[in-house]
Amino acid sequence: MRPSKRAADEMRAVSFERNVARYAEGSCLIKFGETHVLCTASLEDKPPMWLRGQGRGWVTAEYAMLPRATQTRTRREVTSGKQSGRTQEIQRLIGRSLRAVVDLQMLGERQITLDCDVLQADGGTRTASITGAWVALHDCLKWMRSRSIIRDMPLKDHVAAISCGIANGEAVIDLDYVEDSAAQTDANFVLTGKGNIVEVQATAEGAPFDEQQLQQMMALAKQGIGKLVDMQKQTVA
Amino acid sequence: MRPSKRAADEMRAVSFERNVARYAEGSCLIKFGETHVLCTASLEDKPPMWLRGQGRGWVTAEYAMLPRATQTRTRREVTSGKQSGRTQEIQRLIGRSLRAVVDLQMLGERQITLDCDVLQADGGTRTASITGAWVALHDCLKWMRSRSIIRDMPLKDHVAAISCGIANGEAVIDLDYVEDSAAQTDANFVLTGKGNIVEVQATAEGAPFDEQQLQQMMALAKQGIGKLVDMQKQTVA
Amino acid sequence: MRPSKRAADEMRAVSFERNVARYAEGSCLIKFGETHVLCTASLEDKPPMWLRGQGRGWVTAEYAMLPRATQTRTRREVTSGKQSGRTQEIQRLIGRSLRAVVDLQMLGERQITLDCDVLQADGGTRTASITGAWVALHDCLKWMRSRSIIRDMPLKDHVAAISCGIANGEAVIDLDYVEDSAAQTDANFVLTGKGNIVEVQATAEGAPFDEQQLQQMMALAKQGIGKLVDMQKQTVA
Amino acid sequence: MRPSKRAADEMRAVSFERNVARYAEGSCLIKFGETHVLCTASLEDKPPMWLRGQGRGWVTAEYAMLPRATQTRTRREVTSGKQSGRTQEIQRLIGRSLRAVVDLQMLGERQITLDCDVLQADGGTRTASITGAWVALHDCLKWMRSRSIIRDMPLKDHVAAISCGIANGEAVIDLDYVEDSAAQTDANFVLTGKGNIVEVQATAEGAPFDEQQLQQMMALAKQGIGKLVDMQKQTVA
Amino acid sequence: MRPSKRAADEMRAVSFERNVARYAEGSCLIKFGETHVLCTASLEDKPPMWLRGQGRGWVTAEYAMLPRATQTRTRREVTSGKQSGRTQEIQRLIGRSLRAVVDLQMLGERQITLDCDVLQADGGTRTASITGAWVALHDCLKWMRSRSIIRDMPLKDHVAAISCGIANGEAVIDLDYVEDSAAQTDANFVLTGKGNIVEVQATAEGAPFDEQQLQQMMALAKQGIGKLVDMQKQTVA
Amino acid sequence: MRPSKRAADEMRAVSFERNVARYAEGSCLIKFGETHVLCTASLEDKPPMWLRGQGRGWVTAEYAMLPRATQTRTRREVTSGKQSGRTQEIQRLIGRSLRAVVDLQMLGERQITLDCDVLQADGGTRTASITGAWVALHDCLKWMRSRSIIRDMPLKDHVAAISCGIANGEAVIDLDYVEDSAAQTDANFVLTGKGNIVEVQATAEGAPFDEQQLQQMMALAKQGIGKLVDMQKQTVA
Repeated sequence: MRPSKRAADEMRAVSFERNVARYAEGSCLIKFGETHVLCTASLEDKPPMWLRGQGRGWVTAEYAMLPRATQTRTRREVTSGKQSGRTQEIQRLIGRSLRAVVDLQMLGERQITLDCDVLQADGGTRTASITGAWVALHDCLKWMRSRSIIRDMPLKDHVAAISCGIANGEAVIDLDYVEDSAAQTDANFVLTGKGNIVEVQATAEGAPFDEQQLQQMMALAKQGIGKLVDMQKQTVA
Repeated sequence: MRPSKRAADEMRAVSFERNVARYAEGSCLIKFGETHVLCTASLEDKPPMWLRGQGRGWVTAEYAMLPRATQTRTRREVTSGKQSGRTQEIQRLIGRSLRAVVDLQMLGERQITLDCDVLQADGGTRTASITGAWVALHDCLKWMRSRSIIRDMPLKDHVAAISCGIANGEAVIDLDYVEDSAAQTDANFVLTGKGNIVEVQATAEGAPFDEQQLQQMMALAKQGIGKLVDMQKQTVA
Repeated sequence: MRPSKRAADEMRAVSFERNVARYAEGSCLIKFGETHVLCTASLEDKPPMWLRGQGRGWVTAEYAMLPRATQTRTRREVTSGKQSGRTQEIQRLIGRSLRAVVDLQMLGERQITLDCDVLQADGGTRTASITGAWVALHDCLKWMRSRSIIRDMPLKDHVAAISCGIANGEAVIDLDYVEDSAAQTDANFVLTGKGNIVEVQATAEGAPFDEQQLQQMMALAKQGIGKLVDMQKQTVA
Repeated sequence: MRPSKRAADEMRAVSFERNVARYAEGSCLIKFGETHVLCTASLEDKPPMWLRGQGRGWVTAEYAMLPRATQTRTRREVTSGKQSGRTQEIQRLIGRSLRAVVDLQMLGERQITLDCDVLQADGGTRTASITGAWVALHDCLKWMRSRSIIRDMPLKDHVAAISCGIANGEAVIDLDYVEDSAAQTDANFVLTGKGNIVEVQATAEGAPFDEQQLQQMMALAKQGIGKLVDMQKQTVA
Repeated sequence: MRPSKRAADEMRAVSFERNVARYAEGSCLIKFGETHVLCTASLEDKPPMWLRGQGRGWVTAEYAMLPRATQTRTRREVTSGKQSGRTQEIQRLIGRSLRAVVDLQMLGERQITLDCDVLQADGGTRTASITGAWVALHDCLKWMRSRSIIRDMPLKDHVAAISCGIANGEAVIDLDYVEDSAAQTDANFVLTGKGNIVEVQATAEGAPFDEQQLQQMMALAKQGIGKLVDMQKQTVA
Repeated sequence: MRPSKRAADEMRAVSFERNVARYAEGSCLIKFGETHVLCTASLEDKPPMWLRGQGRGWVTAEYAMLPRATQTRTRREVTSGKQSGRTQEIQRLIGRSLRAVVDLQMLGERQITLDCDVLQADGGTRTASITGAWVALHDCLKWMRSRSIIRDMPLKDHVAAISCGIANGEAVIDLDYVEDSAAQTDANFVLTGKGNIVEVQATAEGAPFDEQQLQQMMALAKQGIGKLVDMQKQTVA
């Protein structure tokens, strides 16, 4: 039995709320149970320095947690003067995931920054960030098209993400903080709307796992991400 | 006529929402019109290093803005490795303001950190922060008393704050971003529930102002803060 | 009775010494009793990056204390890699105060940096800095005019500053370190030669104060700053 | 045809050289073709601060590249004052991989740091680092046992790593820099001597990939890591 | 002919002023012509962390220049977040030079910090710093003895320093900024009162120099430092 | 008797290995006994920013030690966010030494960076770095000439360096770590192929030394550097 009484393949209640940030070109407050992430998309009319003059754009992401998103207060990263390795890993993952479904040529010499700020954290913040950031990005691109900044939507597909794990020897989906802390294996899957793989990261926290367990987690992820993509579709419909 | 069509002594719509952060000992989402600040109070069971062994506690504050709280995206402070002078001024002001109404002896050897994170910014973020942080602090202290960590409430009075300015030669209250940008004088008042002064900061942005104008702004502030204190009372009732 | 035996409205002995820094375009060693600040004005022939091409100039300030300006040695800020919040507040205040009396259009696309380095600190370093920096700035502008870099003096008025406080329930002027440490309220006033207000900052260190006390401090400040402005006039005559 | 003319399942020439660092408790210079990494193991007789008093030890890793390990000179990270996100990701991966095969209880309250310094870089530096660090770690533990610091070897298994990718639509193993730059998918596998999974990271650089391709890469990795583990056995025999 | 019209073996006018910093345990304002350095000695009643419990004390130094000590304004080091290599070299040299004449055992578990702050810079700031710091250190130790913190003076000898150079092919002493900028060779000598060598640093700025030139500079330095030591004796007499 | 049983004028076994870094324009692995330094020369086709447009080039150096080059592990400098004073002193010395024998005019608007990375440290790392860097620089310049980037070799002479010291009252050459730690005086000499002086640094670690001892060390250094220059000649022949 999972700590949350959920079935092995049962995700937490998921909700998307669009247009939550008055000034952003696109925004989405996504909730995976008690994990709440505010995703905003900000358009800048020039690409990063290293990409100037190549006719292509860029999509990047930044990730942070409010100090009291967590059970006990976490020190702000600015106080230590730099982002932790964990923060950098996560924001690099979010950026890569979104870029996988954007046609950077069609975007033109512009940059979109996806800020994923965790208001409340109960496990799965990076997968919620990717899933919510897609909506913010979509709305930003729509905003751009409505102003004729771009002619067509440079969005090739949906992208969404979910965590899986091996807990008590069984593959489970969408772990909350308590379950995640005790799991033997921690995995994150990022898939497209068509079900292709953008990123797989699976890590043994305790004992190494076997290939069959990886496949079980992959199966759960496919199913769960399918549902998330359906919800994205309804949200932006 | 003010850009917002408000009368000179008319504040924006103000609202307080308590218990918005699941894990914090006290929290309040305060809104002054389109300015939204999430205030949380976090209890730590020891005071800062420099105060150890003196039988007293401490109340401190940290302030930050989400990157897309603003009209155009603002760089995260962690990227430049340090807090700006503006951020430090504001968080020092919030901390001083709250400490003015707390009996640090009664608090005992503990520290409460008030995190004021601006989700959306339309002028007056520091005064909204102080006003909302008082509610978060109140609820944190009540939480402590309900668990017998403290016997009595170490809160001596209310504290709330409002901005005033001289715009088009006239004293006005609670300026939004547009009005603030054009104002000749920018002032912040922090008063207690009894109407005493905790802090006055008045700055000529353009031409210097005179004593009479300072008194006009003070009168507006007294009236406005009176209303804010009434709302605090209703909120925590 | 004040610790220094001075009357409530009696400032410490104040002196100005011009041309103390051989290489600076303007300089002044100002003393408020045992508080000694070396102020220099440095001209740069282009404005800061963000102001380029707008036909206006800029006046800015930096503030620091020698490590042994104080009773016990203070760590250099460079050792911790950044300026403290206090330092930033003070230098922003000095910059704002001086800009309030300069016509930045007349200055043209140039920048003047006022460095206020505290050689010895006995309270009131920020007010001494502002008062002395005005002389350094004046002499820098005169130097510029004498070399036909500018045609007319872009200095609209004098500006000077003094601290006041409530000590033992009574409003007093120009507090030294001992008195300041024990005062209930700490205030700084920056006024122009004409007696208008550039900046008022009043903070309750202990109990909140009332409006009448603010007015008493304001009255003391007006009188004191009047004397400081007279001394500035004699100094640059 | 691969740029290196190798078959799809053919790794580069791999060599291990032990005892290359005179002062380290264990060391190994590992070469995967033109990728050369110097791995050292350093014993410290206390665990990191956050683990004190828990009766367990810790294994951690640091990773860096010499400035001219690369085709064009890379700026030292110390010049920008912090490690890049990439460096932090890699050293966290190396540490996790080695900890997966160490009994931290048996290690006792000590820390072993594995430094992986890339002398020459031609792709696959992180997988070479993990594979070589195992030898340095083994030799460090043997050194400890020979001095009776520990009674038994706390090493539960081998661990080794290899990169795979999808290049020209085909799964290939152990990509060099040229092949890696052009590959559609980049994956790293960390497996134990028994063939279990410690970590899988697979990222679509261009088009997303499918589950079958993931399995093809996994099959290549299993075979390749089997050979690396055999070489580790011969090296420490 | 030297730019300053001085003879090859002629130093600039040198003066020492004691007790210039009200709060420091020892202080000296030293002038070598237009080079002015304020040296203070600060006593701390414990040694640096790494020396605790060894029964010995420590003498260290810090060096800085006011921003407008120089012909054109120099950026404060705190703005870039760290001391330059030049600053670190100089303060390490000052510390080593003073430690060479102090009996650290007799000093006991204490630390004396010598702050050398350059108020005005016209070449030779490091040699003026060493020479003036000796006086500040002497007075600090005397202060300690007068309060019975130490029984005997732990000062074994005088120490003073002077720069020499090869300018227009000729060895010259005590170069000012103009001469130093054009010199082929730049050398600094630190000698004790008995004429022994504490430090020699000689650097070819342009063409390498020969041993004979080194000896000529050494001869000049011996003579000059002899005079400086005589002045130190008169100053502290 | 020296700890290493060597005669007072006997250097350790010295070896040079060229072309050790596949991608660098020039490289040399130099060994002074157990001190091993990897020196690479990297060509950049523009000079540093401050030298642009002056028709001259620049030669600079960076120095670092691998964490386990030393007897006990040394923290990486990047972890503390900045280079130590020692590192900066050393790399400034290496850069100055090499520039002394390069015609920067002939080099043209380019920069060569000499990276000296200490793989193993047993005293004398800075002198080994200078001596080995000369070979790397020579090979880089030859590489440039062979590609007609320059017409003639801008190398005016050899440069090499050796340490000397006073140990047990006697002048000795090329101290290893053990001898260096106990020596009373530590000196480094940098001479050209013609025997002229580029840099002399002599420091009393304990008791000050006299002029005769300086001359004895200089004599040893001349002889030793003569041998090093001969070896450089054979290496690049």
